[in-house]
Amino acid sequence: MIGKLAVEPKEFEFSFHLPTLIEFGYGKAARLGERLLQLDVRKVFIVSDKGVASAGLLTAMTESLRSSGITFDLYTDVEPDPGLETIDRGAAAFRTQPYDGIVAVGGGSSIDAAKGIRAVAANGGSIGDYAGVNRIPAANPVPLIAIPTTSGTGSEVTIFGVYSDWHNQVKVTVTSQHMAPTIALVDPELTMNLPARMTAASGIDALAHGIETFFSVRSRPASDALAMRAIAAVSANLRRAVHDGSDIEARIGMSHGSLLAGMAFNNGFLGLAHAIGSALSGHCHVPHGVAIGLLLPSVVEFNASVRPEKAATIAQLMVAIANGAGTKAEGAASAVDQMVRDIGLPTRLRDVGVPEEKLTDIARDSFKSGMMKFNPRTPTEHEVLELLEGIF
Amino acid sequence: MIGKLAVEPKEFEFSFHLPTLIEFGYGKAARLGERLLQLDVRKVFIVSDKGVASAGLLTAMTESLRSSGITFDLYTDVEPDPGLETIDRGAAAFRTQPYDGIVAVGGGSSIDAAKGIRAVAANGGSIGDYAGVNRIPAANPVPLIAIPTTSGTGSEVTIFGVYSDWHNQVKVTVTSQHMAPTIALVDPELTMNLPARMTAASGIDALAHGIETFFSVRSRPASDALAMRAIAAVSANLRRAVHDGSDIEARIGMSHGSLLAGMAFNNGFLGLAHAIGSALSGHCHVPHGVAIGLLLPSVVEFNASVRPEKAATIAQLMVAIANGAGTKAEGAASAVDQMVRDIGLPTRLRDVGVPEEKLTDIARDSFKSGMMKFNPRTPTEHEVLELLEGIF
Repeated sequence: MIGKLAVEPKEFEFSFHLPTLIEFGYGKAARLGERLLQLDVRKVFIVSDKGVASAGLLTAMTESLRSSGITFDLYTDVEPDPGLETIDRGAAAFRTQPYDGIVAVGGGSSIDAAKGIRAVAANGGSIGDYAGVNRIPAANPVPLIAIPTTSGTGSEVTIFGVYSDWHNQVKVTVTSQHMAPTIALVDPELTMNLPARMTAASGIDALAHGIETFFSVRSRPASDALAMRAIAAVSANLRRAVHDGSDIEARIGMSHGSLLAGMAFNNGFLGLAHAIGSALSGHCHVPHGVAIGLLLPSVVEFNASVRPEKAATIAQLMVAIANGAGTKAEGAASAVDQMVRDIGLPTRLRDVGVPEEKLTDIARDSFKSGMMKFNPRTPTEHEVLELLEGIF
Repeated sequence: MIGKLAVEPKEFEFSFHLPTLIEFGYGKAARLGERLLQLDVRKVFIVSDKGVASAGLLTAMTESLRSSGITFDLYTDVEPDPGLETIDRGAAAFRTQPYDGIVAVGGGSSIDAAKGIRAVAANGGSIGDYAGVNRIPAANPVPLIAIPTTSGTGSEVTIFGVYSDWHNQVKVTVTSQHMAPTIALVDPELTMNLPARMTAASGIDALAHGIETFFSVRSRPASDALAMRAIAAVSANLRRAVHDGSDIEARIGMSHGSLLAGMAFNNGFLGLAHAIGSALSGHCHVPHGVAIGLLLPSVVEFNASVRPEKAATIAQLMVAIANGAGTKAEGAASAVDQMVRDIGLPTRLRDVGVPEEKLTDIARDSFKSGMMKFNPRTPTEHEVLELLEGIF
């Protein structure tokens, strides 16, 4: 029955789920009120952060809510890499009023926070209780509209939420279909004023999502298709968006790339850069995107030996645009390295304040990440330490 | 504000929705009972056709239901291009018992039939009442599991249903989110015994879905990514699957290609080949895939002049495998033509019994199709007639 098949049929198994409705358009956020009325939403809990609020990004949206007769309250206490308590306090605030909609506006932190608040509001307890996979008992019927203000995390279409357990100095990940936003409203206009440094850090995260999903042991045709397109879109637009934030075409391209990468890794999962990055951020408070930028070239080099065809494809997708490096497997790591340098992200751990004596702890704790198992080449702790020393 | 942008931001707008959970795996259908128990389904209405039943394809599934203690009834009255009455009779049969699940097993006809039965069962009336876009009032909470036995229609993941209004000799299309199956269970094992002729006809339809979505005026990065991968998968596997039906790798590749094409056209829509194809099948009862195979080379040639970069990409995707034709825009039509010939489908309308005097009617009625408006080059009625004469 299983003739002419080099591998077990099991190798071809996959599932693909993307329950979030994606609505992409320049200027769409300013028409948020009309959209919410279509969903019969009249009283909204807005989850955001003080940076987004003080940048004035909420103004057009709240104006739109007012003119649509929709009342709202703001919860802008979300800090970067939000803590468990931030989610639980948000859920408590949500329950004080009969809100019939949640809107998240921000980067991954605000969107992840809103996902967690929505889940805890419906199920009680603390978001920490739902750490792991499929531990949230019930869906919250209140719709969540996720509106990203950066191009990087892809959180607007994923089933993941990442939170900081400050007490135990670890990151906690909640994975559940009940975390998926109802609608991802992706409006590149909101990213037009993102500073170059944040454009670079979030953009390299989007590139990493594409590359790690493409390398993942769970990669399959559908996630590959989306990941490849994401790598191409980020490669074509990230330098331009960093160097001239008013380049609207580059901003639209980055919104596409980040979204496609999110659609991909929601189904193909990540790998070694995110595993080490999680430990690095946990130990030394290096911002997520910066950590990923530091690690990605070395991780690509580490993985290229076991997936040379995929590495060659990455090189081609990146180099068709960048016109540097080669298009063989060896070219992938240097293409990524060149990108990190071109967009001005740090390339040495010492330059972001990581003490050399911490490297052993970071290497050890990399193995606590659930993402390690999706990497195509399983490193020893010693190999991770060597990788870290190489970029120290 | 809109600096450095060659086109209106509106051009970049899109939405993407894929509510169906996809579960892909060789041999999965034989474990259907376990899967339904996870969904708390105990009494199933199976929609299929007599060809599928007599080929023995239902046996492993019904055995699995029995051993899981799930009761079921069979509705195998679905004919090719099912009529409105078939749907309405099915809905009446469904309502006679407290079924808590619907399983569709077959090609596009059986899956489309099940989608329509599910909608009518919840909303009353006739499926014809819901012709058009978003006309179905309410979702039916009863889950629908769609299990394709061909690699072609993509119906297992789409929001469309196509039915024959035999009385008025037209096709009726129902488009609604409420038509999307709950789960697409894609098991390549079910296609292993599909005859060569049906493999060819359904496979060229999958290729057309990829190509027409890629050419569509509604094509966007996400649909492009999936469409390109679909074109590559079908191009790499269709000849092999037709020439040796037991080639399991080719069958898996075709299941991938058909699924990816369905995911793509659910969001990017189709074009001229499907518009003319619908009129051709309506007037002369040419099977859908055969009609598409006849038309696709000429349609690709017609569209290549307005989308030369896309035509060149299609040529590359097809030729990287086939090693014939060129990889310029002009190569796309000949690559498709070569595929149609290699898999033994007819290339002349006269060879499938189309009378020359019907061509005028077919050309005229092509414009009744809702798919015409997604084609990148809008033909005159005279141009459609010329195209038909060219393949007569």
